[in-house]
Amino acid sequence: MPDQVLDDISHRRYNPLTGSWLLVSPHRTKRPWQGQQEAPSKIELPEYDEKCYLCPGNNRAQGDSNPQYKNTFAFVNDYSAVKEEQQEYHPETNQNDVASLLLQAQPVTGRCYVLTFSAKHNITLADMTAEEILPTINTWTRIYASHLSPSHPLKEQATKALAAIPPNPDGEVDPPKHQLKNMQIFENKGAAMGCSNPHPHCQIWTTSTLPEEPGKELAQMAKYKGENGRHLLDDYAKLEMEKGERVVWQNDAFLIVCPWWAVWPFEVIIIAKRHVRALVDLSDQERLQFAEAVQEVARRYDNLFETSFPYSSGIHQAPLDCTNEEAENSWFHMHFYPPLLRSATVRKFLVGFELMAEPQRDITPEQAAARLRACGGELYRKALQ
Amino acid sequence: MPDQVLDDISHRRYNPLTGSWLLVSPHRTKRPWQGQQEAPSKIELPEYDEKCYLCPGNNRAQGDSNPQYKNTFAFVNDYSAVKEEQQEYHPETNQNDVASLLLQAQPVTGRCYVLTFSAKHNITLADMTAEEILPTINTWTRIYASHLSPSHPLKEQATKALAAIPPNPDGEVDPPKHQLKNMQIFENKGAAMGCSNPHPHCQIWTTSTLPEEPGKELAQMAKYKGENGRHLLDDYAKLEMEKGERVVWQNDAFLIVCPWWAVWPFEVIIIAKRHVRALVDLSDQERLQFAEAVQEVARRYDNLFETSFPYSSGIHQAPLDCTNEEAENSWFHMHFYPPLLRSATVRKFLVGFELMAEPQRDITPEQAAARLRACGGELYRKALQ
Ligand SMILES: O=P(O)(O)O[C@H]1O[C@H](CO)[C@@H](O)[C@H](O)[C@H]1O
Ligand SMILES: O=P(O)(O)O[C@H]1O[C@H](CO)[C@@H](O)[C@H](O)[C@H]1O
Repeated sequence: MPDQVLDDISHRRYNPLTGSWLLVSPHRTKRPWQGQQEAPSKIELPEYDEKCYLCPGNNRAQGDSNPQYKNTFAFVNDYSAVKEEQQEYHPETNQNDVASLLLQAQPVTGRCYVLTFSAKHNITLADMTAEEILPTINTWTRIYASHLSPSHPLKEQATKALAAIPPNPDGEVDPPKHQLKNMQIFENKGAAMGCSNPHPHCQIWTTSTLPEEPGKELAQMAKYKGENGRHLLDDYAKLEMEKGERVVWQNDAFLIVCPWWAVWPFEVIIIAKRHVRALVDLSDQERLQFAEAVQEVARRYDNLFETSFPYSSGIHQAPLDCTNEEAENSWFHMHFYPPLLRSATVRKFLVGFELMAEPQRDITPEQAAARLRACGGELYRKALQ
Repeated sequence: MPDQVLDDISHRRYNPLTGSWLLVSPHRTKRPWQGQQEAPSKIELPEYDEKCYLCPGNNRAQGDSNPQYKNTFAFVNDYSAVKEEQQEYHPETNQNDVASLLLQAQPVTGRCYVLTFSAKHNITLADMTAEEILPTINTWTRIYASHLSPSHPLKEQATKALAAIPPNPDGEVDPPKHQLKNMQIFENKGAAMGCSNPHPHCQIWTTSTLPEEPGKELAQMAKYKGENGRHLLDDYAKLEMEKGERVVWQNDAFLIVCPWWAVWPFEVIIIAKRHVRALVDLSDQERLQFAEAVQEVARRYDNLFETSFPYSSGIHQAPLDCTNEEAENSWFHMHFYPPLLRSATVRKFLVGFELMAEPQRDITPEQAAARLRACGGELYRKALQ
């Protein structure tokens, strides 16, 4: 296989989802490291922390108090990056004016939610079973469904999903005041990824504009579909299942791979095996299968360096307000970007060259996948007990 | 002025240099911070450290020993991300084959240099005068000049620059074995930006391919030139000088602004005021003026939170191998991306939403510029002595 040589030489790989390249330098992991070390994660947390603004029954910054919730609990972020109501802004646009070309701005409104995964302060997705993760997937699905535009091509699926998933009173949110364009569900886990509270939670930022990344991916997926008549991620998932070397794990509905174009050392992507456009397309069984896949990633990550592995993760799916064609071109997937490279305390920095020139990685995605394949089994913390 | 409202509302701004948008949430700086704190930088370093692989006279990883250099010293990185010689790789390309579409790779060769700014282990650019920084600018210029392709449109300027700048024997490098495409000069300063050795130094990565960022910028600059008949950064610098609110400092040759589209909290860009395509276009006087501008950024950064301020910086200029048109479209500038947001220990994390959706910032570039304008004057460490 001619690709074997890529284990030894510097090369660039192409990310078809974003249309950009990254530099891979496999030999560079031999480099010694004398720089910043991450503090190993403290795992000695209490199950309930009276100072945590996410624990059940506690008070939050703006005076609200949390219900005695059982697993998921959703609320509007007390420090939202976007708000539903704000002063209007109408930029003066004049095509011949340099300022209109070079000082462009657009107002953005929206609503930011925080959503807990569990009432317990001291656990993570890795500690939970797929069944325990399911309420989070269900709440994501209900929140997504309740934000779709009235004429959305997935409206019927949304109605079905809302009927199929029993509401969790603490996970319900009000419908937005104005129709929004996009919903970004993401988790920052661990201090190294800017998370300021270890209580297991994610965020959901809904915005009146389509952000850069999902916008780029949608455009690339549409282009591929137009040129090849097939879905990019459908072709990609099938190709990876055939090749095998980047596959970490799979069930009937989802495939976990270290993508060919991974930037972060142990980056993975969970890809739906059939054409799922958004959460509301998932059947009851598929939601559980998705929970299983998320659990596999989280547990394998923790097992890799026997630490609470930091990462940022996020779901890409059809926008909240889109055409039939945009919904059709969407293909449900979830990215995980973890910074750790060699051990629980040595991370990969995406800095100088990466910021000024091009993302750069050291170990290959194939090497990363082999390591992640090998660390299934029980969560190391359980095995130690 | 209608733009005043942008101080209070969430909005997106457009980066014409890369053709992408970012989210600005000015009200969000009020958010309390309980997450990771950066360790305050240790400033108690010795002037010479026998364990530092960059100090004069010391031995390096692969057994070479450093000369007793005076200021700048250049050598090939012992752990280069790219190398000049490696096994060949010829991907099989077959347009109808899914693997050729989705598993694309290109070999990359090149040479990576490390370059010290000073023989002293315990100083930074902020501690140096413009005259003391000048040897670094001169060495950058000589190294750039010596890597240009034989038919490069700036070859004549390169010859002149090599004649005008006296060689520093410790800053000379061999010409590359094969012609390379691009040279990225960058500095990672501080542990927070992945720097593993405080000895003041930068890196220079030359590659056989044009990386993503300079590639995107060149394309955007060419597009703007084609559409408007003027240079993007010429128009932009003039506009900012007229507006004033984002200007940090300027001399006759260079302008420092917090760009309209800044992502990092105190991001700045140094822009040449006249059409400088690359380092070799600078006159003797302009190289000193450039050193002055770099000094202003470094000193103001340190003064801002009275700390050794971390950042990544990098120069964008004409590629090493390019057409006359590409050289003409290039406009010399230098980016500084610093992570600190509110104090010497609280940084801005570019994580979940930023990675999955769109870069997001809290304080506006106008607020950042006002703060940086106000902290000129002597370096705080000097004033404390
Ligand atoms: O080469 P250094 O300084 O050891 O390494 C640093 O800069 C490189 C280029 O930006 C990065 O790839 C590394 O992650 C970072 O730690
Ligand atoms: O909202 P949090 O968790 O306090 O904040 C974290 O996630 C946000 C969204 O990715 C980032 O903008 C912040 O820099 C980060 O610290």
